[in-house]
Amino acid sequence: MTVPREALVSVARSGEFGLIARVTARLPVGPYALLGPGDDAAVVAADDSRVVISTDVLVEGRHFRRDWSTAQDVGHRAAAANLADIAAMGAAPTALVVALCVPPGLDARWAEDLADGLGAEAARVHASVVGGDMSASPTLTIAVTALGDLEGRAPLLRSGARPGDVLAIAGRTGYAAAGYTVLSRGFRTPKLLVEAYRRPDVPYACGPEAARLGATSMIDVSDGLLADIGHVAVASGVAFDVRRDGFEIPRQMRDAAHALGVDPYTWVLGGGDDHALAATFPADVELPAPWRVVGEVRAGAGVTVDGKPYKGSPGWQHF
Amino acid sequence: MTVPREALVSVARSGEFGLIARVTARLPVGPYALLGPGDDAAVVAADDSRVVISTDVLVEGRHFRRDWSTAQDVGHRAAAANLADIAAMGAAPTALVVALCVPPGLDARWAEDLADGLGAEAARVHASVVGGDMSASPTLTIAVTALGDLEGRAPLLRSGARPGDVLAIAGRTGYAAAGYTVLSRGFRTPKLLVEAYRRPDVPYACGPEAARLGATSMIDVSDGLLADIGHVAVASGVAFDVRRDGFEIPRQMRDAAHALGVDPYTWVLGGGDDHALAATFPADVELPAPWRVVGEVRAGAGVTVDGKPYKGSPGWQHF
Repeated sequence: MTVPREALVSVARSGEFGLIARVTARLPVGPYALLGPGDDAAVVAADDSRVVISTDVLVEGRHFRRDWSTAQDVGHRAAAANLADIAAMGAAPTALVVALCVPPGLDARWAEDLADGLGAEAARVHASVVGGDMSASPTLTIAVTALGDLEGRAPLLRSGARPGDVLAIAGRTGYAAAGYTVLSRGFRTPKLLVEAYRRPDVPYACGPEAARLGATSMIDVSDGLLADIGHVAVASGVAFDVRRDGFEIPRQMRDAAHALGVDPYTWVLGGGDDHALAATFPADVELPAPWRVVGEVRAGAGVTVDGKPYKGSPGWQHF
Repeated sequence: MTVPREALVSVARSGEFGLIARVTARLPVGPYALLGPGDDAAVVAADDSRVVISTDVLVEGRHFRRDWSTAQDVGHRAAAANLADIAAMGAAPTALVVALCVPPGLDARWAEDLADGLGAEAARVHASVVGGDMSASPTLTIAVTALGDLEGRAPLLRSGARPGDVLAIAGRTGYAAAGYTVLSRGFRTPKLLVEAYRRPDVPYACGPEAARLGATSMIDVSDGLLADIGHVAVASGVAFDVRRDGFEIPRQMRDAAHALGVDPYTWVLGGGDDHALAATFPADVELPAPWRVVGEVRAGAGVTVDGKPYKGSPGWQHF
């Protein structure tokens, strides 16, 4: 196979400014970008007169592997991790900036494909990449910061859950963790799970929707459902009980769990990276799909499953 | 000397959430922080209904060395690099978020001291650190994103310089580069230069001031004066001529240059990291101190020094 000449341009040969120009040229400009890349800073519309901001970093070997994910996949995931945090405040994402650290020998095409993934994921919510920075580094690292607009609403915090509320989630849990396990055992299927690990499918619009429906608290499930609602439990001074039968386990996950000798609830209750939204609502709120009730808020502290302490890992530890 | 027990807690032992709690507790909350660290995202005031955003990353071994700079120094520099970009748009900085990648063996105290430096530099402009992320990584990396408020003014771009304008700078150039050279030759003095490398002294207030004075373009000098005004020349479609005699070379720099066999103008014209502000103004604007005229804008393209092409390096190449 002939490798096109283009593909052989390394970051070192392309140079910082050359690579920035190549990457920037690929990024679509969104409606909130009043001034995009190319100056000392970008300017983003903030109609609400408040801006929501969150940052999340992905490190090669820790959060992604280049042999498991394409550069576009990594771009989708890096953007999704940040955009989900914005949605979890009940806000609409508006813009991203990206700090990219690359080994000098990295193919410049990888950085361009990463930009494509970042831009495409942002475009799902009409946000765009408005700026960035680039440096050489021995460790491929992608730090993304996302902005969002509250559209006049109060931010939805972790601290508002009240005993008697229901716990509901929108989006998938356990799919990405199952995909990760499958890949780490050397398999490439089932596609449903592997693709879920590579590109989370985040129900962004459910964030602002939850705020409109009167949610009392919200968080995005990045570390694992039980770990993340554990943060809500602490911040709100309440207890959670999660019902196993609130979760539908798809056939592919059930089959993979059986084949690999894993309890699928380890994935569903403890697996992160799907970026589902978990919110609490007063019990009388009628929740439209895709929201589904998976538990309840009680007086007390801690998180139980079907009324009992959970034996498995509640989620991901970063160190 | 007895090392206090506290100092022996590594990041790995402290854990992500423990370290985040330790770091967060040290960060002062600024007036723009409507919601600080601890939720999925922070909320920052954006009275202008537009927000200025910039990101800049520092990588150990490339942008700093732990034997040359304390963690507090690195915090000051990381914040300054970003806050200067905001000021260079004519905006007032409001908030920072920080993504920190640390080797698991790093002393947790280092991260706390870094936070102190970040917080202290931000506090100089009444901004504050409102959120962050943390990950393990083989490479110590600090990605900072800064926000700013335009206070009703138009952003000052690189593209507005016009033939006939004067080029003026506020702040120091060459000090940090001279300090870097001194340190790289194994010396620890002169203190003026070494300290300038460790903690830039950025005239942040001159950014909004330049906008109020009617500046036509602005940039922060991060890569080297000639390189950076070269970007303005391209963006504006003009040429610059810089006058050597516009720069006063302090005695300590002159002495160090002599001792090390360096032309001090290599530092002054080509050295980055001081984050001076370089702006163009109509020739009839009376510029208050610390602004000083160091050149002029002409029709044409490129950057000359005293009317002639410059032989030295115009600035820093990141790869």
